[in-house]
Amino acid sequence: ARPKVGYFYSGKTALNFFSDQIKNIKVSDIKSVPVIVDEETTVYDAIVTLFLEDVGTIFVVSDGLLTGVVSRKDFIKSAIGGVEINKVPVGVIMTRMPNIVVVESHESILTAAEKIIEHEVDSLPVVEKCEDNGKMGYKVVGRISKTNITRVFVDLAHND
Amino acid sequence: ARPKVGYFYSGKTALNFFSDQIKNIKVSDIKSVPVIVDEETTVYDAIVTLFLEDVGTIFVVSDGLLTGVVSRKDFIKSAIGGVEINKVPVGVIMTRMPNIVVVESHESILTAAEKIIEHEVDSLPVVEKCEDNGKMGYKVVGRISKTNITRVFVDLAHND
Repeated sequence: ARPKVGYFYSGKTALNFFSDQIKNIKVSDIKSVPVIVDEETTVYDAIVTLFLEDVGTIFVVSDGLLTGVVSRKDFIKSAIGGVEINKVPVGVIMTRMPNIVVVESHESILTAAEKIIEHEVDSLPVVEKCEDNGKMGYKVVGRISKTNITRVFVDLAHND
Repeated sequence: ARPKVGYFYSGKTALNFFSDQIKNIKVSDIKSVPVIVDEETTVYDAIVTLFLEDVGTIFVVSDGLLTGVVSRKDFIKSAIGGVEINKVPVGVIMTRMPNIVVVESHESILTAAEKIIEHEVDSLPVVEKCEDNGKMGYKVVGRISKTNITRVFVDLAHND
């Protein structure tokens, strides 16, 4: 019998295709603007920045290079833990390099989502490697969070 | 000419399929256990619960029915805003019904993701309508967050 012409999908194959699509979306396609403060910023001023910019995570730099990350959880701990938030710099309470999970612009959003799930963080700094006076480090060029991933999820589902 | 037999995909059609798949995944398939405190719980005790359970949002009930939601942002505001966190009940600082966005178990995860993006929240209480002495309300039966959505995203992409 002549085979039917036209479309035939198995879920598996269509999901393969979906998987390929996702791998082709790069971090650079969906990254947000990073919110950055200097290590010397007080905890209080960093909290004000957090609210003004309405983000969950702030990236901390020194001499322009990434040195740490500070999250809402860190701020709650400090605020109830007796830290003098008007005096103490954010560098004291942040999670410090090298314990920071980063992603680069050319990586896929699937890789970013995997890192977020595996390391149980809300967002990742998007970085570029750079060298300054022989010192290797990361410049922060973006931010990618569960919000970005959720937005892509909705957009892909509506793409019909 | 005899048409070629076999597979032919346009991105549009494969994404249609993806879209259908997503619509078939229900909130009940991926929801997490909700973290719930009573309205009379102190802000301090609610913060302790937040850290013990490692969640971003706590649901608040009174007589077993949902009355509010309290987030990390609310806790930071209270902690730096001079609220006596050891005395003040969480009911004072929470976002109160009816200003709470909810989702039901039978709804699709796409609907849940859309509500999260549209209302700019981190998570939604999964609820069941119920009536108690003629009073209508919601019982909280789950929690769905950007983390759940991100995890589904990763799982679907790996499903090949």
